[in-house]
Amino acid sequence: MAFSERISRLKSSLIREILAAAQRPEVMSFAGGLPAEPMLPKVEWSAMPTSVGQYGMSEGEPALREAIAAEAKALGVPCDASQVLIVSGSQQTLDLAAKLFIDPGTEVLLEAPTYLAALQAFQLFGANCIAVPQEADGPEIAALRQRLEQHKPAFAYFIPTFQNPSAVRYSEAKRDAVAALLDEFGVTLIEDEPYRELVFDAGSATPIVTRLKKASWIYTGTVSKTLLPGLRVGYLIASPDLFPYLLRLKQSADLHTNRIGQWQALQWLGSERYRSHLAELRDFYRQRRDAMQAALQEHFADLATWEVPQGGLFFWLTLKRPLDTRTLLAPALEQNVAFMPGEPFFIDPDLNPGHLRLNFSHVAPERLSEGLSRLASVVRVALAAQAA
Amino acid sequence: MAFSERISRLKSSLIREILAAAQRPEVMSFAGGLPAEPMLPKVEWSAMPTSVGQYGMSEGEPALREAIAAEAKALGVPCDASQVLIVSGSQQTLDLAAKLFIDPGTEVLLEAPTYLAALQAFQLFGANCIAVPQEADGPEIAALRQRLEQHKPAFAYFIPTFQNPSAVRYSEAKRDAVAALLDEFGVTLIEDEPYRELVFDAGSATPIVTRLKKASWIYTGTVSKTLLPGLRVGYLIASPDLFPYLLRLKQSADLHTNRIGQWQALQWLGSERYRSHLAELRDFYRQRRDAMQAALQEHFADLATWEVPQGGLFFWLTLKRPLDTRTLLAPALEQNVAFMPGEPFFIDPDLNPGHLRLNFSHVAPERLSEGLSRLASVVRVALAAQAA
Repeated sequence: MAFSERISRLKSSLIREILAAAQRPEVMSFAGGLPAEPMLPKVEWSAMPTSVGQYGMSEGEPALREAIAAEAKALGVPCDASQVLIVSGSQQTLDLAAKLFIDPGTEVLLEAPTYLAALQAFQLFGANCIAVPQEADGPEIAALRQRLEQHKPAFAYFIPTFQNPSAVRYSEAKRDAVAALLDEFGVTLIEDEPYRELVFDAGSATPIVTRLKKASWIYTGTVSKTLLPGLRVGYLIASPDLFPYLLRLKQSADLHTNRIGQWQALQWLGSERYRSHLAELRDFYRQRRDAMQAALQEHFADLATWEVPQGGLFFWLTLKRPLDTRTLLAPALEQNVAFMPGEPFFIDPDLNPGHLRLNFSHVAPERLSEGLSRLASVVRVALAAQAA
Repeated sequence: MAFSERISRLKSSLIREILAAAQRPEVMSFAGGLPAEPMLPKVEWSAMPTSVGQYGMSEGEPALREAIAAEAKALGVPCDASQVLIVSGSQQTLDLAAKLFIDPGTEVLLEAPTYLAALQAFQLFGANCIAVPQEADGPEIAALRQRLEQHKPAFAYFIPTFQNPSAVRYSEAKRDAVAALLDEFGVTLIEDEPYRELVFDAGSATPIVTRLKKASWIYTGTVSKTLLPGLRVGYLIASPDLFPYLLRLKQSADLHTNRIGQWQALQWLGSERYRSHLAELRDFYRQRRDAMQAALQEHFADLATWEVPQGGLFFWLTLKRPLDTRTLLAPALEQNVAFMPGEPFFIDPDLNPGHLRLNFSHVAPERLSEGLSRLASVVRVALAAQAA
């Protein structure tokens, strides 16, 4: 069978495989990024018109595009509804961007670590991925400048607000510095913000795209983390020079996004009900974050270091004595505990051992201590074996 | 701005542009392939569990995969549910297949004419498209053998049942001959069947994939033509050697298909209610087909020839004196009539002038005569100008 050349770079989705393994009810899963089941809102469908079942526009539902543009403008994003494309979940933005920009060998700039599924989508199309190291307040600016001087990336893909996996939120200063550098070198920014609304403190920072003066940009978000992931409704907003191409690529990919999910999303966006749902969600996740922090201090204080995340869905642990955390997966699953190894979030996994991504939204607080105790034991056994 | 090389081959979707132009209510549109609004079934949502809003499996909902496999098995397709992948409309099958097989220059085999959006999806990835001429009962078999002897196509993409645009239904003999040739040359078949259920006579023929003995295959269908296109729920069934790659490509494209649409589709598939809805749909479209045939005989008998379609949504007219029908589009829209020019359905549009694709499901019968009269006038004016 002769497949395309890109299939040699097609990886299985480790996240999806771990999620599948973690589906047994006895497994405590810290692996996924799933919203907590009790916080899925009850949604009503009875008012949806039958005409929503007809074919729709590739751009998306006009009223939904207006609502998303209004929210983005309130954040300072310079856009109107004509720049909004509704997509089948924000993963699709990555696929469309890859098609728009990437030939085999095309350089793209990513954080280290970065979102695993973005890395896979870009590598599938043959991207030559260049890494910028991540610090607690965003990328190393000197390293970013050096990468931009030495390379010609087609775009920079950054997740500045509660990054998956590291939970880093860029500081104001780093947001400004990143924008200035991308303007200086004329590099397109893809800014991915699924977690902006899942914030636990009073902090906030406007998107980097609002700080650009010249560079082209794609800003992408989703209702998956705040409403219902099963709707598969996300969006991108693009600078006008990019939008027409992304629209045509969307047409070629799947004609248009499902209209029933778009209709439901529109019932929520901008409403008082949505604001109050988001407030409840933040309270709920803040409590889960706090419970996780307490349980981690109990079981992992001697094994790892971490920052307390101010938003998003994840803790990012760094083992004090690094080992390849992929080797922990099988023994952890034997103990009915699932987690995400950190290595696949790096362009060069083998050079970056010793991180674990732990989701705090899914496991009920009363089971946390037991789950993390088992996981810590797995780490201790591996460390002992390594030392022996 | 440096885009990928494939963007040089990215075409706008002519169908989508004509549909947009045809959205003014005064326009009578023979252009699209839209189901008739009065035949969109009323659907119920109140029984849908909240958990359907959670992330789902990339493969699709297990019960829906079972239902689709059961229907396919009843047609003779040798499969089980593990070979079914739920996709975001059957357009997505084309995108996934293009990713799986096509590098720049990869040969693929298509009917002439073929489905425009498939041609565009394959060409976007750089396919070198090879045409097999279509006759009233399917492809010219001698030409097919010759193409297979002279080329090494990665796959053959065929629409054997009420093809879009030509409405051709392959005969039993041609289905057997196509299967035998693909087996002989070891060429993968992609069989696209959106219109199988929209049949107006007693005829039927099992899919070509049921007749293959060795070749790999992808069989694809959708609920868009029989239930609701706005759900964006389609499916593919693949031979086991292809399925794992298509699944990973689906994960990379959009993680999974929206679950609310999958849930709704499952409420219908295989049910008595669905069977009776399909029977009503066939009656309704048969009457519209008959009304269109009468109106065409009134206005186009001297201008064009055509076969009466036994299924699907389209008449395919061949002008007796060929001209480039793309030049008719602007004057037709000035007369508030929209149609699809035939040229873009061919690999080499300029060598294939003189066809029109006319949809018969959308325009109400009482407006048909007026609409086709206006369209015939546009043709007459163009022919007169050509002769002058």
